[in-house]
Amino acid sequence: MVTFFKPEQTFLTGSKTLSREYYLSLEIFAGEIEQIFTRSWFCAGHVSRIPSAGDYFVLDAYAESIIILRDQNREIRAFYNVCRHRGTHMCEEAEGKFSKTIQCPYHAWTYSLDGKLIGAPLMKDVADFNKDEYPLHAVNLHVWQGFIFLNLSKSPEPFKHAFEPLLNKFEGWNLPILKSARRILYDVKANWKFIFQNYNECYHCPPVHPQLAKISPSNSGENDLIAGPFIGGFMSIEGAGSLTLSGNVCAAPVGELAEEDHQRVYYYSCSPNLLLSLHPDYVMFHTIWPQSPTQSIVHCEWLFHPDSFGRADFHPEDGIEFWDITNRQDWHMCELSQLGVSSRAYQPGPYSPREALPAAFDNYYLQIMNK
Amino acid sequence: MVTFFKPEQTFLTGSKTLSREYYLSLEIFAGEIEQIFTRSWFCAGHVSRIPSAGDYFVLDAYAESIIILRDQNREIRAFYNVCRHRGTHMCEEAEGKFSKTIQCPYHAWTYSLDGKLIGAPLMKDVADFNKDEYPLHAVNLHVWQGFIFLNLSKSPEPFKHAFEPLLNKFEGWNLPILKSARRILYDVKANWKFIFQNYNECYHCPPVHPQLAKISPSNSGENDLIAGPFIGGFMSIEGAGSLTLSGNVCAAPVGELAEEDHQRVYYYSCSPNLLLSLHPDYVMFHTIWPQSPTQSIVHCEWLFHPDSFGRADFHPEDGIEFWDITNRQDWHMCELSQLGVSSRAYQPGPYSPREALPAAFDNYYLQIMNK
Amino acid sequence: MVTFFKPEQTFLTGSKTLSREYYLSLEIFAGEIEQIFTRSWFCAGHVSRIPSAGDYFVLDAYAESIIILRDQNREIRAFYNVCRHRGTHMCEEAEGKFSKTIQCPYHAWTYSLDGKLIGAPLMKDVADFNKDEYPLHAVNLHVWQGFIFLNLSKSPEPFKHAFEPLLNKFEGWNLPILKSARRILYDVKANWKFIFQNYNECYHCPPVHPQLAKISPSNSGENDLIAGPFIGGFMSIEGAGSLTLSGNVCAAPVGELAEEDHQRVYYYSCSPNLLLSLHPDYVMFHTIWPQSPTQSIVHCEWLFHPDSFGRADFHPEDGIEFWDITNRQDWHMCELSQLGVSSRAYQPGPYSPREALPAAFDNYYLQIMNK
Repeated sequence: MVTFFKPEQTFLTGSKTLSREYYLSLEIFAGEIEQIFTRSWFCAGHVSRIPSAGDYFVLDAYAESIIILRDQNREIRAFYNVCRHRGTHMCEEAEGKFSKTIQCPYHAWTYSLDGKLIGAPLMKDVADFNKDEYPLHAVNLHVWQGFIFLNLSKSPEPFKHAFEPLLNKFEGWNLPILKSARRILYDVKANWKFIFQNYNECYHCPPVHPQLAKISPSNSGENDLIAGPFIGGFMSIEGAGSLTLSGNVCAAPVGELAEEDHQRVYYYSCSPNLLLSLHPDYVMFHTIWPQSPTQSIVHCEWLFHPDSFGRADFHPEDGIEFWDITNRQDWHMCELSQLGVSSRAYQPGPYSPREALPAAFDNYYLQIMNK
Repeated sequence: MVTFFKPEQTFLTGSKTLSREYYLSLEIFAGEIEQIFTRSWFCAGHVSRIPSAGDYFVLDAYAESIIILRDQNREIRAFYNVCRHRGTHMCEEAEGKFSKTIQCPYHAWTYSLDGKLIGAPLMKDVADFNKDEYPLHAVNLHVWQGFIFLNLSKSPEPFKHAFEPLLNKFEGWNLPILKSARRILYDVKANWKFIFQNYNECYHCPPVHPQLAKISPSNSGENDLIAGPFIGGFMSIEGAGSLTLSGNVCAAPVGELAEEDHQRVYYYSCSPNLLLSLHPDYVMFHTIWPQSPTQSIVHCEWLFHPDSFGRADFHPEDGIEFWDITNRQDWHMCELSQLGVSSRAYQPGPYSPREALPAAFDNYYLQIMNK
Repeated sequence: MVTFFKPEQTFLTGSKTLSREYYLSLEIFAGEIEQIFTRSWFCAGHVSRIPSAGDYFVLDAYAESIIILRDQNREIRAFYNVCRHRGTHMCEEAEGKFSKTIQCPYHAWTYSLDGKLIGAPLMKDVADFNKDEYPLHAVNLHVWQGFIFLNLSKSPEPFKHAFEPLLNKFEGWNLPILKSARRILYDVKANWKFIFQNYNECYHCPPVHPQLAKISPSNSGENDLIAGPFIGGFMSIEGAGSLTLSGNVCAAPVGELAEEDHQRVYYYSCSPNLLLSLHPDYVMFHTIWPQSPTQSIVHCEWLFHPDSFGRADFHPEDGIEFWDITNRQDWHMCELSQLGVSSRAYQPGPYSPREALPAAFDNYYLQIMNK
């Protein structure tokens, strides 16, 4: 039995925003990469991006280039995009299909799709050289509910331990079988934390998102996860079928949802890089990629039930465009916040009771950073 | 009674240019921001830019964004462009008109034009929250002779003490009532000190400004302020009515000038950021905005007597274009100097007797920096 | 009698590539500038670029701008592009012709082409000022075999000592009298050492340069200089007259070559910045200009016998285009290597026996850096 709270119920009076250096300092940014991003399980994307054996995409994550592929046995694997000979990048395209091997373009060293070195011209004459010692560097990988998670640590916390609060939470939504209709990349001139804070409150909805606020009242939210790495809850859909430009549902239901879930959108922010938004007729997810203290790349992708594709009542753009507009409104506010906190005059300001979750996000962040 | 000197009379033999690090070092640049720019009264512009209640412009100064406005009582005020809630930038336009309030676009916190917080949605439920404690952060401001001066220090030196040598110096020129005909922004790839040094000597005029040197001989200058934050004097206009492309005066006299002042241009450099050039028929002023050790933004604005506007003999472009050409010639020399001093081979070189004022500028600069 | 070795014969088993920081660290890059580039004789270009008195070009080298000219006595000289007065850059064009003097554009200080200060307006009134004390700063210069070498050190090693292994090596190729037909500049997003490593092996030729590998087999190389600042040897031309798109020779022989040299290309990498490639019918040379740990500018120039110019069988583009294509293939591999070694997963990898010279280059580099 899930317990929900209005944000006001969980708000700690006196909560204030983070101080200025957390949005500007190169040292703190380096500390975040070290203490958060290269130690945590982060979301790399959804399995529907590489449906067949040999399919791959290349992910730029925390200054690393990572090849994510489906091998000959249809197993999903991830490798650093670094040849073991002279360190050369092997894949240049953002995505594609391998025909059984990965070959480095420089000196033609060749690897099987499970990462083994199977060809190294003229190396047989080198005493003590053993191909088995030079596989591609693998990246820790775990697929959960169709989402591919990676961990760059040498001894990662077990995924199931880290994600325990979410493990069986979304089973009604058919996440593993959904298919992507669209992916949009945004270049946001703001610190990644502004994006999390923005996602976690609807206090800004009336001034920033008049369209959204009309069909999903900003005071309708209730949260069940209210502290720690995963926080969120739902908001109501009122006077509309879903969050779309037309107000109508735009696809078949993603799953066999409880009746109340047809009038709800569930929003969960999952540290360190995933925002998961479950609508009755589609699932939207954002992954956030910090580039510097003042810049973040955001991937946004929309997933639908595979049966929806090709049907006459499938209008994915109706939901995609609704959120593309809303996303851009949000990034703009994040960018204005970045500009403002760079002032010497900025001081932490008071959160309102509707900002219980941003305050909880900040608390968890500080707890990790001060470990 | 003002005493004037030829530059040669005040030249200290053996004066040499500054050493290389003053034009290149990020540490020295940070020291300048700290010891000079955020402690001194600097010029933000002229009151004619915001004639009516509600008018505002946004100034980018030393990495701060500052809103300068005329409030409902026609009083000029300056505020940091930072909402007290989450630090968001509130004004995005370079200039405009407020209708009675400033509202933050993110969560709609609202301020009156004198900076008071008058609206903060849903904050009434927060115990201990008092709107009176969250006014906009004000910037110290003083209007002198129509020029708006700001000071970012917490305990600024009184303006009248800092500007004592200039206080009553320019009363004949009607500075408070002049009106602007044009403002041009220049992006100069040079250290800000090169711009001051360039302004303070006409040794370069024959090779760099043949047009100017013809109607204002480079050896005609005499200076009355020869040391400290304010230095300058006049040069003669010969064989022309004013400094214009045509050689004719281009507007009504700016004030009731002494007869000799109709054949003179007065040039004063006012640390840390103002260059004030008083012609018989117009006043030109530059404000200098250091961006990095190797880049400066320069605003140049031309002011005329309000009675000139609309008259048949009003040809402001005749003076504006004359100086736009001359400005660009100067910036080019500043940029070549920046390139040159970056060489490991550069050594401080000998100033000539015509460069008494650049040497005095350097001396005052070093005195402030070594305090 | 020159002794040649197959690369395999000089390969030290167990050689590995350099570690990651050598390609990324700003500190190491600064150390390279200090310990290598500003202490060594580096190649600035070929004398054929400034054939007549007054001809000059401006070289950007290791953050210095250097004027290289032929003076009134046809002697080649080099000066820092820095006026002795206020440090201003004097020459803005990349190349041109002086009419007897160099004049600074800012205050018209004037120098003869041998660097003497011969004009300094109004300085005669300064006690103790002596023009003889303010010549242009000269750069150490030595012309060897038509190539102009510079050294930025205050007490450079004698050129003939530093270049002893090469001094009389290339006399058959008429290097001092050759004329340039083309110069191409490349902007390579890679560390300069990748370019040297790439030049010094043909293990990459089959996958990267199919055209080249066809007429100059990748296993045909033999080297005579196998350690130290100068390394290289020859590769054979087979089934073609020279390295050209058509496979035909494209110009008259550059010199009276031994019969075997008509079927050979000699390749020598000369630390710190020259790659010298001697073909029967043309000489190509690269000079490498490090800009940052991750960027290098490369100049490539093609020299021909002066008698070739104007002849019906002179087709310089046939050789130039062949190498322009090959150059770009190489830079691309260097750029992929730069991307790859930036990964935290990169570890030094094993060189193959065909990479004896890159291993020797790395060894010499480390020896100089660890001095």
